[in-house]
Amino acid sequence: MKPGTLHGVGLGPGDPDLMSVRADRLLRNARHVAFFRKAGRSGQARRIVDGMLHEDAVEFPMEYPVTTEVPVTDPRYNAALSAFYTHCVDHLRDLIEKGEDVVVLCEGDPFFFGSFMHIYTRLKEVVPVQVTPAITGMSGAWTATGQPVTWGDDILTVMMGTLPEDTLTERMAQSDAIVVMKIGRHIEKVKSALKAAGKFDDAWLIEFASMPNQTVQKLAAAGDKVTPYFSIIVVHGQGRRP
Amino acid sequence: MKPGTLHGVGLGPGDPDLMSVRADRLLRNARHVAFFRKAGRSGQARRIVDGMLHEDAVEFPMEYPVTTEVPVTDPRYNAALSAFYTHCVDHLRDLIEKGEDVVVLCEGDPFFFGSFMHIYTRLKEVVPVQVTPAITGMSGAWTATGQPVTWGDDILTVMMGTLPEDTLTERMAQSDAIVVMKIGRHIEKVKSALKAAGKFDDAWLIEFASMPNQTVQKLAAAGDKVTPYFSIIVVHGQGRRP
Repeated sequence: MKPGTLHGVGLGPGDPDLMSVRADRLLRNARHVAFFRKAGRSGQARRIVDGMLHEDAVEFPMEYPVTTEVPVTDPRYNAALSAFYTHCVDHLRDLIEKGEDVVVLCEGDPFFFGSFMHIYTRLKEVVPVQVTPAITGMSGAWTATGQPVTWGDDILTVMMGTLPEDTLTERMAQSDAIVVMKIGRHIEKVKSALKAAGKFDDAWLIEFASMPNQTVQKLAAAGDKVTPYFSIIVVHGQGRRP
Repeated sequence: MKPGTLHGVGLGPGDPDLMSVRADRLLRNARHVAFFRKAGRSGQARRIVDGMLHEDAVEFPMEYPVTTEVPVTDPRYNAALSAFYTHCVDHLRDLIEKGEDVVVLCEGDPFFFGSFMHIYTRLKEVVPVQVTPAITGMSGAWTATGQPVTWGDDILTVMMGTLPEDTLTERMAQSDAIVVMKIGRHIEKVKSALKAAGKFDDAWLIEFASMPNQTVQKLAAAGDKVTPYFSIIVVHGQGRRP
């Protein structure tokens, strides 16, 4: 039997109007749709496509066995996730080998962080795969600020809030433009690094970029509010401006 | 009279199928379409939308007075470009104040490098403006390599080939994932920096990402070929992989 195709489809930052024409078409025609989510949640990726899926679409939610309950440095974290990905991949491969196309929903761009790549690396030599790139969450975030993020020869550094504070500080100090993602409970460390790098007063905090509940404010004005996991901090470059 | 809107519309990496649903709609309905190009060329942005524009669309090509003939460090470069942008903006403002909507075509994402921001900053306080983000050229490039660019806590640094070699080397050595753009005649300097940073053997060269003439190869296999201005070099991160 001719196998189907595994589609890794980037959904972009959240507004369905910002999906690519190809993503929109693949989603509306899909008969099998898989997506990651935290157990007990509806899932951000699934929420983005609300109202777009075909009435006959079969959904396959893939629920993380752990998210923040076990530190990523604990060997049990990698072991649990590895077993989880194997389980997901077995199901997807079975469908595809039976001739079905499967669309995996990916927040942002499939090859820029995220979980799809763990499925991708396990299946790319096994079944046909097509990856549809998308507008990144960070692009949605800097657009929301109403200011260009990079000019001329600016250097942009993209960092995760999970990194050690001294690493964050050092790289922030050397960069013209900065993006920090995966902030969540690391917000105080990220703020401290931005201050040490002399960038705190120029930092913006964007939550739910491009979505109806989008917020945009200077980080200094955000107070002690704990920000959700997928907030993004942006510092704009100041390069050449003819 | 009620003014129109200035739309900065990101076209993405080049494949029209990768434009956003919103960009596709704005382009097909636009009556005034402006775009940058080098004098005597058709222009990359304009080429991407071939066959998509309305038959009544009025086109306004904006031809750079200089590109690489004058070094960017020469005061004449900034002076010539500044006068050019003022000229473009006068024409666009006139249309918008007469009630017309104008779509400015932007390769990649409008707020991520590129020329649109020079129009944007001159008009954002003067007329209504809407910016439509897009898939970046670098996202098209890393997707073309068939490998995720960043995993786990990887640090991504985006640099222009126009930077000094010691800056390039230093930042490349400190980064997990690397993107180099604006390569053109800087290719030998960029190669030298990648070698000094120990990243040359892991570097990929992508030309015309997502377009019919796309090429993808290891940089080491590209030989002494001079690459076009909008080639992109990608070094993939190697972060956490459960």
